Amino acid sequence: MVVSMRLPSLSSLFSPSITRRYPSVLRRRHHLRPPVFTASFSAQSTVPATDVDSQKSNQKVQERGVTPRSQDFNAWYLDVIENAELADYGPVRGTMVIRPYGYAIWEAIQDYLNVKFKETGHSNMYFPQLIPYSFIEKEASHVEGFSPELALVTIGGGKELEEKLVVRPTSETIVNHMFTQWIHSYRDLPLMVNQWANVTRWEMRTKPFVRTLEFLWQEGHTAHATPEEAEKEAIQMIDVYTKFAYEQAAIPVIAGRKSKVETFAGAVRTYTIEAMMGDRKALQAGTSHNLGQNFSRAFGTLFTDESGQRQHVWQTSWAVSTRFVGGIIMTHGDDTGLMLPPKIAPIQVVIVPIWKKEDDRAGVLSAASSVKDSLQTAGIKVKLDDTDQRTPGWKFNFWEMKGVPLRIEIGPRDVSSQSVVVCRRDVPGKQGKVFGISMEPSILESFIKDKLDEIQSSLLGQAKSFRDSNIVDVGSYDELKAAISQGKWARGPWSASDREELKVKEETGATIRCFPFEQPHGIKTCLMTGNPAEEVAIFAKSY
Amino acid sequence: MVVSMRLPSLSSLFSPSITRRYPSVLRRRHHLRPPVFTASFSAQSTVPATDVDSQKSNQKVQERGVTPRSQDFNAWYLDVIENAELADYGPVRGTMVIRPYGYAIWEAIQDYLNVKFKETGHSNMYFPQLIPYSFIEKEASHVEGFSPELALVTIGGGKELEEKLVVRPTSETIVNHMFTQWIHSYRDLPLMVNQWANVTRWEMRTKPFVRTLEFLWQEGHTAHATPEEAEKEAIQMIDVYTKFAYEQAAIPVIAGRKSKVETFAGAVRTYTIEAMMGDRKALQAGTSHNLGQNFSRAFGTLFTDESGQRQHVWQTSWAVSTRFVGGIIMTHGDDTGLMLPPKIAPIQVVIVPIWKKEDDRAGVLSAASSVKDSLQTAGIKVKLDDTDQRTPGWKFNFWEMKGVPLRIEIGPRDVSSQSVVVCRRDVPGKQGKVFGISMEPSILESFIKDKLDEIQSSLLGQAKSFRDSNIVDVGSYDELKAAISQGKWARGPWSASDREELKVKEETGATIRCFPFEQPHGIKTCLMTGNPAEEVAIFAKSY
Repeated sequence: MVVSMRLPSLSSLFSPSITRRYPSVLRRRHHLRPPVFTASFSAQSTVPATDVDSQKSNQKVQERGVTPRSQDFNAWYLDVIENAELADYGPVRGTMVIRPYGYAIWEAIQDYLNVKFKETGHSNMYFPQLIPYSFIEKEASHVEGFSPELALVTIGGGKELEEKLVVRPTSETIVNHMFTQWIHSYRDLPLMVNQWANVTRWEMRTKPFVRTLEFLWQEGHTAHATPEEAEKEAIQMIDVYTKFAYEQAAIPVIAGRKSKVETFAGAVRTYTIEAMMGDRKALQAGTSHNLGQNFSRAFGTLFTDESGQRQHVWQTSWAVSTRFVGGIIMTHGDDTGLMLPPKIAPIQVVIVPIWKKEDDRAGVLSAASSVKDSLQTAGIKVKLDDTDQRTPGWKFNFWEMKGVPLRIEIGPRDVSSQSVVVCRRDVPGKQGKVFGISMEPSILESFIKDKLDEIQSSLLGQAKSFRDSNIVDVGSYDELKAAISQGKWARGPWSASDREELKVKEETGATIRCFPFEQPHGIKTCLMTGNPAEEVAIFAKSY
Repeated sequence: MVVSMRLPSLSSLFSPSITRRYPSVLRRRHHLRPPVFTASFSAQSTVPATDVDSQKSNQKVQERGVTPRSQDFNAWYLDVIENAELADYGPVRGTMVIRPYGYAIWEAIQDYLNVKFKETGHSNMYFPQLIPYSFIEKEASHVEGFSPELALVTIGGGKELEEKLVVRPTSETIVNHMFTQWIHSYRDLPLMVNQWANVTRWEMRTKPFVRTLEFLWQEGHTAHATPEEAEKEAIQMIDVYTKFAYEQAAIPVIAGRKSKVETFAGAVRTYTIEAMMGDRKALQAGTSHNLGQNFSRAFGTLFTDESGQRQHVWQTSWAVSTRFVGGIIMTHGDDTGLMLPPKIAPIQVVIVPIWKKEDDRAGVLSAASSVKDSLQTAGIKVKLDDTDQRTPGWKFNFWEMKGVPLRIEIGPRDVSSQSVVVCRRDVPGKQGKVFGISMEPSILESFIKDKLDEIQSSLLGQAKSFRDSNIVDVGSYDELKAAISQGKWARGPWSASDREELKVKEETGATIRCFPFEQPHGIKTCLMTGNPAEEVAIFAKSY
């Protein structure tokens, strides 16, 4: 992990978790010269002269820290991304550089999903990103949806191209072009593939991770012999995403079907998982489309069925992108910074060694190092922050801001007692701190693993409570408007027209996020028209 | 694995490995109606009517099979790629679709290298692919090298862009742009990152895997405080590639330094691994560049050193691409098709159940299935080909053509004796076949693992002999010309000028592939000028 030494937020500096153990030194030092951290618990209490340059260059970040989430959600989000070194802006407007710590979260997402995709019968492959412009025009609603967002290559090898090439915004068109060559009979079906790739959409309003000109994703593409199989596949994949969101990302998404207005350009039905961010805006975190025969008709993707008839294949596509990283940040973060669910955290445990006297140094570092080794052997992602150049206090703040779920502190007293102190990122202060956990590998490992599990389910539980306390059941348009104006999600029966759906959007800023799979029982009356309704819909403002 | 049922080459049909066991039936059937395979050892001896369509659509491939390698290397290469379903042509000239079986080889390359990169201290991250045109112009030799090959985005979101954007051909420029923002002091160094990405180069003469308009690769980028560190890193990474080539891909590459003429556009020194293909042409299979301060000067990538001085960083970059898959095909394939080293084979063992009487079917399939399970549990990549729609003979040919290292045959007699027959892909006929290997999991597993290891080292050994018997030591230009005209590689002392190097290229078609790291001892006299030379160079025609 490349970590340039930027200083984190100061907001957690005086939290009980630090002051309790080292009250006088810390308070005095910081009262003397905040906000720059030069206090040191180590023998090296003076900062080397050469440190100054680096500190200067980071002064801006130091002094600003992370804007508290409670104060300005958007500023907090951007600060977290910068200070935790998740991403940076690329030189082209709207592009993003994903830095190692942010990319490691994406790798955790990939690692889980990649296995699930293979378990469910999909193979990875790769389609070229340059697509002839004429392909995009073949499926009517697809071109309508995507043409305003295209990046076009018009010059190649120094020459103007005869046909403009689209830098893929998604791959349904080129996938179908190839499928026509590979699919002949029902025995070639189902054809189930996936690719991990970059895609480019010329977005006007961008935001790191959430909406960028180029982003990384996986796109699954399947072809089936029957509409039932395609539907089953589309549902299976939204279920895979839902399970991932709950069990790995600790995000209690609501899975459901998109309204016709919100359906993917070219799909018959779009399934979605919708997540509630910390500012209560919705984030569409993954989608799975039943494409029906829309693309197969446009491209002539035919197969001979068992009775010898030529038929168009039935298709699906489904995707999760680096946007999910944004969802994780905005679901679990707090005023102090990032808070990562253990299952997707690049670093699950950080060990901070603490010593005052040079005499203690070797013993503390050696104990810290052997604790690190034993946890690593147990498969825990652990980092030992043993640099001399920063104080323990600085490190506490830094790794809290980076969202590391657990911190282990080891000082001279701990070495004597062969124990460590374990602190939870998600429970501030004394409540989150446990003293005297034995260093004995098997005891410590099992304690740490239990704690990580506890944090994982606690984060999900908190997000669930937050979500549930911010969804309001509404029976009329007035109630809907009231809920939305309070920043909440509104759930109510809906059977009105597309036009009325658009009216809600215009008047409230909220859209139908989905018709959730989980529906209340009983008779429903459309909140807008008073007509009978079969389903409730969820309305919310969204990213 | 999606396998549309294309028929493989017929060339191995009458090999002893098949005829020995089932001589009369097989011969008769095939004499009756070659070349279409409808003979069946199963109870389903008639082909269903609906099969005809699929067979028709594959007729072209069926009848053609794989051109023998010995007959036409290039046609063989393209046939293998098509028939083994490694890749297909994309709709845009020069682009390639990497199909699941080909992509799985790339994944094996990724899996190994990704671990090694992390072990050697690198973090994955992601840089945007769209680069402002002005960036490319900043490093003089870089722009000269790459400008003829650029794909340019000139329209975004329906509007002509103010500045043309380059679809990355490589990322040194954008990497440096970002490094200037992250690197401040020596404490931020070394900065060592890698990305797995697609790159686009407008190549005129393309060939699947070897040279395509878009390809997949990893590109490592590092910045260091001293030239020594950068040099050490460049060497370390070419060593990683060399180890991969030998130990995983069974390709005995020759590692060395490129001549000035062949050095990467923007590098101070380029290290390379050069592989000898089956047609004895060289393939540059991976490169590692010491960039010196060329890019850091062009982009102003500065750091404050320990003595407080501002300095430009010293850099490296290094890459391996999907071209390596082409190298694997062209190193190990034979007349029959692909031959994959076990360590990178997507399928290491294929099990083909064989029965004549319907009564035997269940017993054979059940035994085959339990053999599959036990091998899978042991971590072996195994496929059971239990389809009714193809005969064992067809399957033998198909999986041989696909290069699967080992085949297990299980028939009724084997079930009775609780044993299996194991056949090596790399040793044709009786010599490659072992009978009566116990099905008992621990015995079978250890037998199979040993065999896979044996094949792995045998492939390397064969490639090494082939390579060594095709490198000629030359002491004069005439000898060099003679060696090259025989299609061989020429190794001889070289200290002549760039102009003389280019003359060799013009007159013989050969270039200096590298000055190999392994140098003969003794006094050397330049083969061209008769002047003293410090090193031998290797000359060869190349892809």
